[in-house]
Amino acid sequence: MMEQASVKIEIAALIARKDHVALKKYLEPWLPADLAPVIADLSVEELASLFRVGSRELAAAVFTYMPLAAQRKLLKALNQEQAAALLNALPPDDRTIFLNELPLDVAMQLLAMLTPDERQVAQALLAYPEHSVGRMMTLDFVAVRPEWTVREALEYIRTHGYDRETLNMVYVIDAEGRLIDDVRVRRFLLSALERPVRELLDGNFTMLAPTDDREKALALFKQFDRVALPVVDENKKLIGIVTVDDMLDVAEEEATEDIQKLGGTEALDEPYTTIALSRMVKKRASWLVVLFLGEMLTASAMSYFEDEIARAVVLALFVPLVISSGGNAGSQAATLVIRALALGEFKLRDWWRVMRREFAAGAMLGLILGAIGYLRIAIWSQFSNIYGPHWPLVAATVAVSLVGIVLWGSLVGSMLPLVLKRLGFDPATSSAPFVATLVDVTGLIIYFSVAYLILHGTLL
Amino acid sequence: MMEQASVKIEIAALIARKDHVALKKYLEPWLPADLAPVIADLSVEELASLFRVGSRELAAAVFTYMPLAAQRKLLKALNQEQAAALLNALPPDDRTIFLNELPLDVAMQLLAMLTPDERQVAQALLAYPEHSVGRMMTLDFVAVRPEWTVREALEYIRTHGYDRETLNMVYVIDAEGRLIDDVRVRRFLLSALERPVRELLDGNFTMLAPTDDREKALALFKQFDRVALPVVDENKKLIGIVTVDDMLDVAEEEATEDIQKLGGTEALDEPYTTIALSRMVKKRASWLVVLFLGEMLTASAMSYFEDEIARAVVLALFVPLVISSGGNAGSQAATLVIRALALGEFKLRDWWRVMRREFAAGAMLGLILGAIGYLRIAIWSQFSNIYGPHWPLVAATVAVSLVGIVLWGSLVGSMLPLVLKRLGFDPATSSAPFVATLVDVTGLIIYFSVAYLILHGTLL
Repeated sequence: MMEQASVKIEIAALIARKDHVALKKYLEPWLPADLAPVIADLSVEELASLFRVGSRELAAAVFTYMPLAAQRKLLKALNQEQAAALLNALPPDDRTIFLNELPLDVAMQLLAMLTPDERQVAQALLAYPEHSVGRMMTLDFVAVRPEWTVREALEYIRTHGYDRETLNMVYVIDAEGRLIDDVRVRRFLLSALERPVRELLDGNFTMLAPTDDREKALALFKQFDRVALPVVDENKKLIGIVTVDDMLDVAEEEATEDIQKLGGTEALDEPYTTIALSRMVKKRASWLVVLFLGEMLTASAMSYFEDEIARAVVLALFVPLVISSGGNAGSQAATLVIRALALGEFKLRDWWRVMRREFAAGAMLGLILGAIGYLRIAIWSQFSNIYGPHWPLVAATVAVSLVGIVLWGSLVGSMLPLVLKRLGFDPATSSAPFVATLVDVTGLIIYFSVAYLILHGTLL
Repeated sequence: MMEQASVKIEIAALIARKDHVALKKYLEPWLPADLAPVIADLSVEELASLFRVGSRELAAAVFTYMPLAAQRKLLKALNQEQAAALLNALPPDDRTIFLNELPLDVAMQLLAMLTPDERQVAQALLAYPEHSVGRMMTLDFVAVRPEWTVREALEYIRTHGYDRETLNMVYVIDAEGRLIDDVRVRRFLLSALERPVRELLDGNFTMLAPTDDREKALALFKQFDRVALPVVDENKKLIGIVTVDDMLDVAEEEATEDIQKLGGTEALDEPYTTIALSRMVKKRASWLVVLFLGEMLTASAMSYFEDEIARAVVLALFVPLVISSGGNAGSQAATLVIRALALGEFKLRDWWRVMRREFAAGAMLGLILGAIGYLRIAIWSQFSNIYGPHWPLVAATVAVSLVGIVLWGSLVGSMLPLVLKRLGFDPATSSAPFVATLVDVTGLIIYFSVAYLILHGTLL
């Protein structure tokens, strides 16, 4: 592949020379997906020249690969007629995604530029809820009738298939447009030409409703290795198809949402690099404040044990160590359970199995950390008097608390996502920081209770 | 769809009655992906009967949808000849995935069952590194020559296409088998039959090497909306293709790895519900111990300030609150930056832009938390004497430390993934617990330093 920078310079030079013939020739062999990143940094005027010169199909295809900000800049630079031509040439599903990301008033202005037919299509797609299958579907599908022969079907495809975005599946519908079956295009290719289409049907197909959530579509694509799934209305009438290439984007967006929630922030819903600072701070501040208010309970818990701390300051030294270990164990458990839930590895009713696993894992992890903690204090005490003459009791307090707190953290971390899901919330809300905060407060109570039991009569 | 449970009972009953004719008839209309979950709970003997009765193609297809444990059980229950037939009927890429998950000795036994041709294929695929394109590719592609007519190409596809897993793209190769172009099968359908294939070429195609990482393939699929990409050897000879349906699994596995690392554990590499407890504890313990050893520095830092704590126990009360806020802010920043890096939203050389953003965001978030912290202490002090007569100074200490620590946490959290990436490590290693631990230790130093500055001469 050529160096992007030099290509960009070449294009810019051709634009500057206004050499439209050479520019057109230069653009011809490019794939839209390749061209989009190369021209991303061109000035608005250069972009507009480029779009006036290129074919309408190339322009529309490149447009769908451009970032939103560049798309908006470009539309503004084109005159009314050019913008309308570009918008009308966009594939309906890509146009929906674009319109959807604009402020309502801008979107309305652009809708007005569409031909009546295209406007009807755009408005229909926009009427479906966000993240629904209806928003993602394309109307570019080929439907044939069961009574046709394979030859007739292929002839129909040859004459009507040019505009179709996807032609890997052919849909078979009855006279009322109701879906009867979907057939891979290869089956048409591999069949004798005089066979009726009816004989290619196997009656096995999966359908989506336009109101289905895109996560449902993703799950179906994963289960059935299909490149496209049909979308039908309540009368089983075929109204569109969803293609697998859009699913890669859905999978990525859903994973991003889960990851951001796990990190203790609201899902940004836009790229980190381009989101306005104020909007990002708002999304982060809400959770940070909730966690802060929750963590304030640690100050209350600590002040409840103020006398003990005053009598044995040594206890305060291990507070961050002990409670953070519980938080870390809880964060591990929560993350593993949330991801397993998202992948459908188990159901809510299996909570008992999960709890048993985490009880065993938490106990083992607690014993490991407890042993290390005990050794640490024992070894230090051979060289300094920092932990006083009662260091074996202090070490025992830390070790026993660690077992209890790590076990408790693992149980809280694993059960909280299940409880949230049961209550109808997104399990990913039980982020690492959320679990850590919960475990911090309860961990303090465990720690000081263990200290009271072990140190009563000596240090306390 | 029918109730799965009743279907399973029906199948089990037919097996029990040994009514092989009725069973075969019952199985006929099923899609493999539908059948696999239904039969998952059947006993090994029942499964084996089912596989003996069903067609070899259905058996092989259902097999690829079954979980690993069920696959292994089943192969053991079949006799040598039946197992060999099943293995030979599997698509090469699915067989590679299956063999790859088995212990080496078991895999070798199974390899020995393959026909020489299939064994060669399997060994070739297994020779590529894990997570490489070579392991995922399928050899089922159709290649034609540029000098053929569309009619000849279609005739060739019709006679050689039956076994092909994917027939959405047709590959055009020269006499030495070198890839010239890939063409959508629809272009053949939409072309006049007497045109030479050469005229359908546009020279635009993207290739993978078998040694490429699967993440590279995923990125290419996202950039180019293709259903399949060709894989070529060092001489540009076409050796296989990778299909988009496998990419959904790759995207899911990569996201799972990142999510688990973010939660502060090694990637499990197997499902949470089936991984052996000992293996899971090992993967979790390693990070937990590292974090614990790091967090021990908090005890050292605290003991350095032991005198201050003894003089002003009130300082100890806010330690968990103040340091955990830094950890939470850091966890947010790390998560957002790691995900943005994984999505390719920015490059390492943009670190300065990220740092500026996080400086602004961290300062604002710190001011918000600092204000809330100040108010909390001020309000409490109206009703109790818990924070002593110098409460405004204590409140100022907490508020100022919060600004500093939240800002510091945001900077550490955002820069650590970039540093790790620069050093060649996986940025996702800088998990929420890892960042929190780093910030805890430094946060203590910030807190007690601020306390010394503000409270010197009064409480300290």
